[in-house]
Amino acid sequence: MSDRKFVLGVDFGTESGRAVLVEVETGEEVGTEVYPYADGVIDHTLNGQELPPDWALQNPEDYLRTLNRTVPAVLASSGVTAEQVVGIGIDFTSCTMLPTDAAGAPLCTKPEWKDAPHAWVKLWKHHAAQPEADKINQLAQARGEAWLQRYGGKYSSEWFFSKVWQILDEAPEVYYAADRLLEGADWIVWQMTGRETRNLCTAGYKAIYDKRAGFVSNEFLRVLDPALEHVIDQKMMRTVSPLGECAGGLSREMAALTWLRPGTPVAIANVDAHVSVPAAGIAEPGKLLMIMGTSICHMLLGATSQPVPGMCGVVEDGILPGFFGYEAGQSGAGDILAWLVRTFYPEAGAAVHQDLEAQAAALKPGECGLLALDWWNGNRSVLVDTHLSGLLVGATLDTTPVEIYRALIESIAFGTRAIIENFEQYGLAVNELYACGGMAEKNTLLMQIFSDVTGRPIKLARSSQASALGAAMFGAVAAGSGGGGYDTIYDAIPRMGGAREQVYTPHEANHRTYTALFQEYVALHDHFGRGSNDVMKRLRAIKAEQRAG
Amino acid sequence: MSDRKFVLGVDFGTESGRAVLVEVETGEEVGTEVYPYADGVIDHTLNGQELPPDWALQNPEDYLRTLNRTVPAVLASSGVTAEQVVGIGIDFTSCTMLPTDAAGAPLCTKPEWKDAPHAWVKLWKHHAAQPEADKINQLAQARGEAWLQRYGGKYSSEWFFSKVWQILDEAPEVYYAADRLLEGADWIVWQMTGRETRNLCTAGYKAIYDKRAGFVSNEFLRVLDPALEHVIDQKMMRTVSPLGECAGGLSREMAALTWLRPGTPVAIANVDAHVSVPAAGIAEPGKLLMIMGTSICHMLLGATSQPVPGMCGVVEDGILPGFFGYEAGQSGAGDILAWLVRTFYPEAGAAVHQDLEAQAAALKPGECGLLALDWWNGNRSVLVDTHLSGLLVGATLDTTPVEIYRALIESIAFGTRAIIENFEQYGLAVNELYACGGMAEKNTLLMQIFSDVTGRPIKLARSSQASALGAAMFGAVAAGSGGGGYDTIYDAIPRMGGAREQVYTPHEANHRTYTALFQEYVALHDHFGRGSNDVMKRLRAIKAEQRAG
Repeated sequence: MSDRKFVLGVDFGTESGRAVLVEVETGEEVGTEVYPYADGVIDHTLNGQELPPDWALQNPEDYLRTLNRTVPAVLASSGVTAEQVVGIGIDFTSCTMLPTDAAGAPLCTKPEWKDAPHAWVKLWKHHAAQPEADKINQLAQARGEAWLQRYGGKYSSEWFFSKVWQILDEAPEVYYAADRLLEGADWIVWQMTGRETRNLCTAGYKAIYDKRAGFVSNEFLRVLDPALEHVIDQKMMRTVSPLGECAGGLSREMAALTWLRPGTPVAIANVDAHVSVPAAGIAEPGKLLMIMGTSICHMLLGATSQPVPGMCGVVEDGILPGFFGYEAGQSGAGDILAWLVRTFYPEAGAAVHQDLEAQAAALKPGECGLLALDWWNGNRSVLVDTHLSGLLVGATLDTTPVEIYRALIESIAFGTRAIIENFEQYGLAVNELYACGGMAEKNTLLMQIFSDVTGRPIKLARSSQASALGAAMFGAVAAGSGGGGYDTIYDAIPRMGGAREQVYTPHEANHRTYTALFQEYVALHDHFGRGSNDVMKRLRAIKAEQRAG
Repeated sequence: MSDRKFVLGVDFGTESGRAVLVEVETGEEVGTEVYPYADGVIDHTLNGQELPPDWALQNPEDYLRTLNRTVPAVLASSGVTAEQVVGIGIDFTSCTMLPTDAAGAPLCTKPEWKDAPHAWVKLWKHHAAQPEADKINQLAQARGEAWLQRYGGKYSSEWFFSKVWQILDEAPEVYYAADRLLEGADWIVWQMTGRETRNLCTAGYKAIYDKRAGFVSNEFLRVLDPALEHVIDQKMMRTVSPLGECAGGLSREMAALTWLRPGTPVAIANVDAHVSVPAAGIAEPGKLLMIMGTSICHMLLGATSQPVPGMCGVVEDGILPGFFGYEAGQSGAGDILAWLVRTFYPEAGAAVHQDLEAQAAALKPGECGLLALDWWNGNRSVLVDTHLSGLLVGATLDTTPVEIYRALIESIAFGTRAIIENFEQYGLAVNELYACGGMAEKNTLLMQIFSDVTGRPIKLARSSQASALGAAMFGAVAAGSGGGGYDTIYDAIPRMGGAREQVYTPHEANHRTYTALFQEYVALHDHFGRGSNDVMKRLRAIKAEQRAG
């Protein structure tokens, strides 16, 4: 063991943080430790005060606790010494952002701000900045801002400037007290290294940055709100660091906290979905990676930049250097199936998932007679509309929960096919699917249905913790070959990343049936999603009115 | 007791038969006995052979057993003597029909036919004659048959000639072996009196008869199928008897079976929904009676005959003499709520209905954010299409079964409003609603929602067994005033029928919200029901194909 070299990947997720120790040479994962965040997702009350709907906060202390609880433990359990760890990479949820003082101390950790909700970390799924996003989109369209098409024509309420502007709108005192506004990803790297940086991935996908065009203009920000005019220069950074670059060495304080060597190279921050691409062994266009959990992220490399309406974004070098990285997504997936279980089987144990899968697998495509729109949590791509909602059609007196379960899986697969067809319609080939994440690991019926619906083979990433592995791979690049790692991510991919031998292949007859059903899905998708009937939005408005009244 | 006079009403329902003994002078119900049919609804297997989908049969022996098990029992339990019973009326489900020999013996009771499914009673909800109904409608439209508009423009697969023709199509040997083809209602009266008659109600609503125009032409039947040309003359009867007329006296055999006096006047047969109108005290236009159970029937009197597209039928004297009786209906109501309970609470006890009602009552209109199309069992009126199916829109990850329960109730109420607006659009005023049946008795939330949605007051029929009471009232008319009854149904109504004092009145603010939601319902109703998107039919076709394949 003693002559082997390792890199550490730390994955900061929604509910927990995870450290994985990986051998540089082979990609072998020799240890894993998970820390469930003490404060988790703060979406109901904060220090006893009720939060409005659609809020989701986190406590940044949970990120530091993750390092402290997992890193020493993974060293101890694996028998790897601090000297053998040649680099560290992290990945984070995004856009998860917070306000800090000039030294990087989160405002929410200060007594005077701890009861101000806007002083806390806004988690990626904080959806309360929709009014700001709407105005950003209106203005960008009116001005014909070129950057808008890099975001598929719509800037999301989840993203950086929507959240920043919500702080300014609702708590200007917090906005003005914040010296720095930044992603949690960059914040944790700052904490680890003592050096403030901004990574290209979150800057590109969430903060309207492009390596050729730079950031969104101050002029646009000024028209949005005069107080925002200089936010980039005053509270952000114009220097954006490429992925894999070394942000700095681990600080003395952080080394004490993690039992690692001071000076251990730490990679520039990165994002969970994006780092999974090299972890799955993908280094070229045409291979779409699906990160499948409560929601699904779709990552695709392109040789050129194409405007694709309704995707999340395209960023040059945003996933791997030398390629345009395309991202799309479905805002509901595993959480829709969890809804079904919670709603139909409130008292069932964990085995209900296996039972449902087994019973649903006995049905043929279309045999349930049901069709759903998978918008229980809105639509992230192709329509980019959080105010859409779920639809089920075809119910009869004989309809069973198992049939609904299968129809929901099918609808999620149709949603992915809609994304694939949207990519292809705008010139980006999708030849092969790759998958990782809990849902891909656990639900073989779902994976087969995805293959049948899309008519494409699907491979699984070899690692069941692809994000942490991908983060570790960028840690190896930060170390460089001279430091025991690799000089580029492309050197790391064939050694550390890869897919399993098992392949899901489409069943031809099923694919035909699903293609007929997909046409029906598209008709409903367009009718309810493209303005022919905005009933979903009106129902939501009536609901909000009745709850308030 | 000994100087009081009584009439007996016998209600032949879907799952059971019921005898109610009613005082002529006051309408007081002095005794009730129920017989659950031994063979119930035969819809899975018949003598060990599997039945195709959509079949629903009954055993005519269950009707005779009803008389034998309930009538002596109700006499015994009430202390009423056979001499005090001055008349009998029956009501039946419809169109529930069977083939018999010339003497009225059902073919299915004969050893040589007992394994032929077509020899049995086809229950009203036998839905397997859709191909025949489709062809009847095509031909009627092509020929411009005047009678078609008396059925709202569509003849149903549930009705008499659809079922007759299905026998001929699928089992010609049964068709040719049948001397008589008739409604169960007329069959039981034949059994009771020894005299074969045909009642105006089922002839009018189900068998294309009108007191002015007579039956559908032999010519039409011949073009449909040459073998059908003389079916009316050969296997039915051209003489149709008005409601309330005496069919004959109770036969000696039947008197022995029921412990009643031989010769007791028996009224011409009638139908459950139709006899409920006088039972509720209705004797004039403008008052719509809803018979609310697994499905809902809507009965309305009109002074004139108006063509109303999409209703079930209009028959002169079909409910009460001197009026045009209009019928419409919803094919799913209580059975949709039963589906919800069965699907979401498979292990819950009977109390779950009360729990759901209480929890759903705490929601405001529109607060659940959901909207449904109540077509779990197809649409009987206004669209007249059994191949439509249920739809739910507005689902989110927070959607609960209670919210779905409330949305389903609301959708059923919207379905009734669509029927009311359809009547009014074609010139028939609906000023006030009356209700009877299990769902009206049990579910006060549902009744309030119906009042709020329709914006109209709703009264409940005084009797909780309105059909049997109505049948008894016609029994009193069959007896005539000379025989201790009444000369007309209008004499009986103020004495024996009536409504309760309790009235559900619409809440103005709720009505406004529901009117906004009803516009959304109408948009979905028309989109999915009038051909803009026939996805429901295509899903059904794919389902059938996959089940068969």
